Amino acid sequence: MIYFDWAATSVPDSEIIDKVREAEKIYFGNPSSIHAEGRKAKKLLIQSREILADTLNVHPEEVIFTSGGTESNNIILFSLLARSAWKGTYKKKVIVTGIEHPSVYDPALFLQKLEYDVVIINPDQEGRIIPEKIAEAIDARTVLVTCMYVNNETGAIQPIMETGKLIRDAEKKTGRKILFHVDAVQAFGKIPFSLSSLNVDTASISGHKIGGSKGIGALYVQKDISYDFLYKGGDQEDKRRPGTENIAGAYSLALNGKKAAALLDDRLTKTRLLMKRLISSLSGIKGIVFLPQSRNKENQDLFSPYILKVAFPEIPGEVLVRMLEEKGILVSTGSACSSQKKKGKHRVLERMNVPAHIAESSIRISPGCLTTEEDVDTLLSIMARLIPELQKIM
Amino acid sequence: MIYFDWAATSVPDSEIIDKVREAEKIYFGNPSSIHAEGRKAKKLLIQSREILADTLNVHPEEVIFTSGGTESNNIILFSLLARSAWKGTYKKKVIVTGIEHPSVYDPALFLQKLEYDVVIINPDQEGRIIPEKIAEAIDARTVLVTCMYVNNETGAIQPIMETGKLIRDAEKKTGRKILFHVDAVQAFGKIPFSLSSLNVDTASISGHKIGGSKGIGALYVQKDISYDFLYKGGDQEDKRRPGTENIAGAYSLALNGKKAAALLDDRLTKTRLLMKRLISSLSGIKGIVFLPQSRNKENQDLFSPYILKVAFPEIPGEVLVRMLEEKGILVSTGSACSSQKKKGKHRVLERMNVPAHIAESSIRISPGCLTTEEDVDTLLSIMARLIPELQKIM
Repeated sequence: MIYFDWAATSVPDSEIIDKVREAEKIYFGNPSSIHAEGRKAKKLLIQSREILADTLNVHPEEVIFTSGGTESNNIILFSLLARSAWKGTYKKKVIVTGIEHPSVYDPALFLQKLEYDVVIINPDQEGRIIPEKIAEAIDARTVLVTCMYVNNETGAIQPIMETGKLIRDAEKKTGRKILFHVDAVQAFGKIPFSLSSLNVDTASISGHKIGGSKGIGALYVQKDISYDFLYKGGDQEDKRRPGTENIAGAYSLALNGKKAAALLDDRLTKTRLLMKRLISSLSGIKGIVFLPQSRNKENQDLFSPYILKVAFPEIPGEVLVRMLEEKGILVSTGSACSSQKKKGKHRVLERMNVPAHIAESSIRISPGCLTTEEDVDTLLSIMARLIPELQKIM
Repeated sequence: MIYFDWAATSVPDSEIIDKVREAEKIYFGNPSSIHAEGRKAKKLLIQSREILADTLNVHPEEVIFTSGGTESNNIILFSLLARSAWKGTYKKKVIVTGIEHPSVYDPALFLQKLEYDVVIINPDQEGRIIPEKIAEAIDARTVLVTCMYVNNETGAIQPIMETGKLIRDAEKKTGRKILFHVDAVQAFGKIPFSLSSLNVDTASISGHKIGGSKGIGALYVQKDISYDFLYKGGDQEDKRRPGTENIAGAYSLALNGKKAAALLDDRLTKTRLLMKRLISSLSGIKGIVFLPQSRNKENQDLFSPYILKVAFPEIPGEVLVRMLEEKGILVSTGSACSSQKKKGKHRVLERMNVPAHIAESSIRISPGCLTTEEDVDTLLSIMARLIPELQKIM
């Protein structure tokens, strides 16, 4: 089986798994315990936090370990309930983009039910948010803006730096702090960025997207931000995220993040070439639609080479996924987190004004760090034969 | 080092760690993916859920995997926000006990700030909740009652069955559903119970207390209960707990739970004998105070033999913990989750009317499944020498 669904989850790094499991046996103490085993475990937790902070180019106290990207995103959206829901007398405004992951978008819709003014900013046809549209929506009631870094369906890299700058400008005008949250799950370890220079207040990352364990993620909270988090309990994670720390998970995230950062440039260069080869050959298949359409023309720097979305209008995406699987190729129709949803499965494409029948016939091809030229060529030769066959019978 | 802090976290089961590690490499897919790797991973998740459900004597669809006991407890308390906070016009009542873990107690205090009527029921001097006191507090506005199963400080087993029965009676009177939540973290795998026969609606358990990994837990939700959970995102865990599932963690919890259940009776018998030996010998140390005082007299069935709380009034608990550590014995002052708290560190003892100076000089001795008679005798001989020495110089 050739795996082209790295955006859903990555093939784990076996060496790091072995290292982490050995650590799990040795550093088994509860890091909140004051005795020797507790202190030993705490040391590994501190070390993991330092490694991750270093990778993100932030301070260790700005890194909170969570159970994953979904929890990190939910913490931010629902911390509003703890912060301000019952205080201010005015209707608070939250700005989200229409292409967010469900773990940002669905909490935002829930805030709307709670009488927050939730403004949804849609992307252009290229799947890209225009920073000025966010800036225009900001007013004195705005408490939070969220925009993801790399879209998990199209791979479109969002203009975080520019958006952050406009938010900081708006703050000066309104005289109020506006939190800027970035879901960096598909960006971390894959495209280069330094959190501390992005004008971002909070950001989410996940371990299992970069070779690490499932059930671990992190939340960056810029150190001048004081958040009153909703979930309560023990004073772990500097009183911000209660619960006995998942030390093995934290260590896994730290090691995989470090490795991904060290190899990022080489992998990116390699994957850009693979993606170029993939796009160029796929262009030759009759009827293919790139999503966005300019994907095969535009500057590749505007997209992550780890995600490609294409459609073959006559062929339902799910059929193509199954047919490719029969030939030994694993791709997906789109986001795994949305795969079970009946409504909103194709929200990201809808917001780019992609017609429903195109969205229904789309697949996501997502290479990863272990993907080879041979894998790509196998995929291409199978698709080149399979697509015309399917087009004939559909 | 002899480890007597199993209530904080357990020594992990190395064999299961190895088994889980191999599974993590093989079943790496995202269980929400529809392709072969996704289905393979989902199969292990389903199997883990079935094993755990079988151990708890409940249906698989009643088991939700979470990141731990703290999250499970928080989900229940804060699901109220999603359920009813903005709906009913009357002030809703939540009843909690004064001896709950911080992950129940602190969310309850937060609900109080949000204008919930939060009633706190304190235990008797034995550290035990009187079911009738809970029943008396119930009225037509009551939406939730929570009571832990085994107290994490004293080991006192709470009358869950009786409390549940009274709550079911009260429901008949008020004509409204009252949710009964039980934090079973210190009970699961240690004392025998069947969730389905306890009149309980929801219950929390944790993996790392029974030899499993940190960062995994579960929430039992009785199948007739419809909860609108707060955190949103993907449709994982039957739309109740979003986020890519921690399959390795779920498998770890399932395997450790199954093993603990299989060995529960033997371990319980063995540990009851060890605890009897421990209590009987400790009684000989001048000045010792058992918490509760009747612990050395009363029927042992009222306490978990895995937790013992004692105090030596002249000796600060933290000093004793460090002195014992120097002699190779690891005990704790109390709950690890409360160890960093400045306020409320001794809340459980306070609620039992234990004087502050006694609480300050208390330690928790918590044996586990690997604890031997020799370990207990070593602890006893060290304490028999150390305590009088310390009493002299204090």
